[in-house]
Formats: sequence, structure tokens, C-alpha cells
Amino acid sequence: MSTGYVHGYSAGEATRLTDQATSLTGLLHAGTHYPQGRWVLEAGCAIGAQTVILARNSPGASFISLDVSAESLAEARRQIQRAGLVNVAFCQGDIYRLPFPPGHFDHVFVSYVLEHLADPAAALAALRAVLRPGGSITVIEGDHGSAYFHPDSADARRAIQCLIDLQGLAGGDALIGRRLYPLLVQAGYHDVAVSPRMVYVDASRPNLVDGFTRKTFTAMVEGVGGQAVAQGLMDETSWAAGIAGLHRAAEADGTFCYTFFKAEARR
Amino acid sequence: MSTGYVHGYSAGEATRLTDQATSLTGLLHAGTHYPQGRWVLEAGCAIGAQTVILARNSPGASFISLDVSAESLAEARRQIQRAGLVNVAFCQGDIYRLPFPPGHFDHVFVSYVLEHLADPAAALAALRAVLRPGGSITVIEGDHGSAYFHPDSADARRAIQCLIDLQGLAGGDALIGRRLYPLLVQAGYHDVAVSPRMVYVDASRPNLVDGFTRKTFTAMVEGVGGQAVAQGLMDETSWAAGIAGLHRAAEADGTFCYTFFKAEARR
Repeated sequence: MSTGYVHGYSAGEATRLTDQATSLTGLLHAGTHYPQGRWVLEAGCAIGAQTVILARNSPGASFISLDVSAESLAEARRQIQRAGLVNVAFCQGDIYRLPFPPGHFDHVFVSYVLEHLADPAAALAALRAVLRPGGSITVIEGDHGSAYFHPDSADARRAIQCLIDLQGLAGGDALIGRRLYPLLVQAGYHDVAVSPRMVYVDASRPNLVDGFTRKTFTAMVEGVGGQAVAQGLMDETSWAAGIAGLHRAAEADGTFCYTFFKAEARR
Repeated sequence: MSTGYVHGYSAGEATRLTDQATSLTGLLHAGTHYPQGRWVLEAGCAIGAQTVILARNSPGASFISLDVSAESLAEARRQIQRAGLVNVAFCQGDIYRLPFPPGHFDHVFVSYVLEHLADPAAALAALRAVLRPGGSITVIEGDHGSAYFHPDSADARRAIQCLIDLQGLAGGDALIGRRLYPLLVQAGYHDVAVSPRMVYVDASRPNLVDGFTRKTFTAMVEGVGGQAVAQGLMDETSWAAGIAGLHRAAEADGTFCYTFFKAEARR
């Protein structure tokens, strides 16, 4: 897995990943419960923000959480220990060349991973190979082209486009949410069902104004400001106006929309 | 009401409005049932595509359906008679200067109307004045900036932007869905609750591929092609490529997303 990770590995980014996971738990994880005795592969666990939620929601299932980064795995392990959970083992490895026998798992869970891969179809095929016949995969991805807001701001839209472009330059696809259906079908999965999970934020939902508009989405865009300006995608003044435009949507008369896509399919 | 209606009044457009209403009934009308004996104002009924659904869902309520166009009202009346419904009366009038006493209605329903008005805030204030204290308003609007699709197509995005621009030139706002919350709050309504209703279309939902992607959304964009080219917003070749891009999203490996916004509030 030679692709870059556009968001980096800073402490601030770790906080953002945890804010994202906790403010959206209900929206994204509703319906994901694995029965007693099942083996679940979490592919690409990063610092374990999703792992804690998964393992807590399915205490009778056993999880193997895999990541390419030893440093992220160490942090994920600390998170699981801090949460007092005992049903997760960790494994360092490459999603394209999984270190497991064919048909080994009952379920696969993969979230915010395919968007960073140069060949998500190959990753889905590799994951399918380690699923038992009839086993299921759950995929959650965002789609940065699904973001819009009031008041509209051309600079803010350009700043988001910079993130999309940088993710593309790093080999990923920030618009992957909308194509989960064809990706899964083409990788040979059956019973593919995609369910969009839209985050709609207005002033009547102050937790989302703070936890999502500001601390998840705007923070994520802000995080690539240095790269965007350094690479000449936007000048410093327009970038600042773009970030101000996103913060403006978090004011009392602003609104913000973003859609995640959750897909379920069978081997 | 001096604003133009960007979609026009053709027979093809009448078919499109009816296709739109019937393919989305469950998504948009779920939860809208008016009790026995209530008086409901439908403001801006056009050719009655929503009127038939409203009146059928709440047979014990009495509807007054208002529109500025006598020709549209005549067609709406034919639709209601054809459906065998008897709980709707029609009234020609201006949404800014409603011909009803203050506090006259228990409920107001307004859909796909505010997007065409130069002053939607004034219209909402006028509607509030004819609601009884504690009465409720239901608003449904689209947001053309919420449309995205796979495969992405710059020409298709430009064609949609032409529709947004033309609607703006006609005095309307095709991005109004995302701002229903602040509009209702600023017009003095209470308990404002906005619920986005996202239409997600992939090949596993063939009725929506045909009824929504092709016959509702793409048909709507296609309908302004003459104006867009005549006004030099796009040349004929790029326009054709844009429409082809929208049709492409209706193929087996394509997907299409659009979001309507439904708001409820109290006087």
C-alpha cells in the first residue's frame, strides 16, 4: 500500500478522527451488530476510532483490526485498552495482500479506507477472498462532493475542491461514496445495498454544529491548507476566505450538509 | 407575483411534474396527514400534482388550493375530479396578498413554490398571517446544488448550473432547500424542524433510475436547454455532452443523488 494519507498523522488529526467517530456514531453504526462467536476483520483501523465503537457494540464477536501503520496500531491498541475492551486483536499488514487464509472471516468492516487507495476494486476483491461464502462486508465512506452549505461561498467550495484534488494526487478518490455500489458489484459481491447517511446541520442541532461542521469537516479541510497553498492550488487570502466561509455556515442562520454512504453486501 | 416560472407550462412539463410527484410520494409525503375537519391551504398548487396526493392522504380534511395561474388551476381541478376527490376547492390568487382572513387555516402546505419567488421570506410571513395560532406549516423544496452523480461529468455539472442561473435570473433560488431553516425562523415561525429527504439512485432501484434520474431530474435540466443555449450560458455541443452525462449516470454502473428538504414549523 504505497499511497499517501492526505490527512497526515498529527495529534490534531487524531483528535479530529475521534470527534468525527463519536459525533456520528448513531448515524453510521446503527444496524451494525455482529453476533456472538463471529470473527470480524476491520481492515484499515487507523488509530482505532471506529474499533472502539465496533467492539463495544458487539461484545460477543472477535475482531481482528488491521492497519499498515505500526504507529497507528499502537495508538489503536491503547484506545481499546483504555476502553476496557478485550475482544480485539491487532495485526499489521497490507489490505491488498491480506495475511489470512481464504474464507477466514464471517464479516469484514472497512471505513474511510477505500477513499485513500489507488485501487479500491483490488482491495475489495482481496477482502472478498478472506470472507467465508455467505459472509458479509460493510463499507462506510464519505463523499466530499456531497458537501454544501448556506450561505454558499465560492471560496469555501474551492477550498473543498483543493482537498479533493490533493487526495487525488495522493492516489485516492474523495468522491468514492457515490460509487460504492458499482465498486462492490464489479468486485463480485452479491445483494449490494447502499444506504446514504446524510448529516444535516442547522442551529437546532448545536452538537452537530460543533462536532461535525466545525470540528470534523471544517477541521479536515483546514488540515490541508499548508499543502494547498504550498502547491499553488489556492493563494493564502482565498484559502482564509474559504475557511471563513465554512465557519460562517456554522453560525445561527447557517446550514451544512454532508453525506456518508454505508454499503452492505454478501460474498 | 411577477416572477417567471423557469420550467414553463408545456404539456411535457406537466407530465414531468406528475412523474416527479408519483415517483417520490413515499419519500416526501410520509408523515403528512391532516385530521378530520381541519382546513388546509395549499399555496401554489400548479397543475395539482401534489394536491391529488394531499387530498387522498387526508380525506377528512378540507383543502383550499391556490395558484396565480387560472390555466394551471383549471388543470388541477380536472386532476382532482379525475381522481374522484371531493375535498378540494380552488382559488386564484397571489401568495404575497392572500385573499383569506387572518388566522383562517389550521395548516399550510407549500411545495416547489418558494424556489421560484423573489421574496420567499415575505411569502412565508403572508402564509403565517393566515394560520391560526398554533397552526402548522409544511414546506417541501428541492436544492439543485445537492445533485451529484457517478460518473462525475463537468459538462453535466455546468448544465445543472445553467438551470440554477436561469432560475436566479427569473427571480428565484434553486438552492433554497438548504436555507429553509433560517427562512422559517426569520419569518417568525416556532419549533422549526427540517428533515432532508435524499433520493439515492443506483441500478438496484430501477423505478428511481427511470422515474427520478431520467424522467424527473434530467428531464427538468433538458427543459431549459433552449434558454441556456439562446442566452449563451453554454454552447450547443457542451450542452448535449452535459445531458449525455446525466443519462450516463442512469446506466447500470451509474449512481445519482439529490436531496429534497421538508420543513415543519408552528405559527
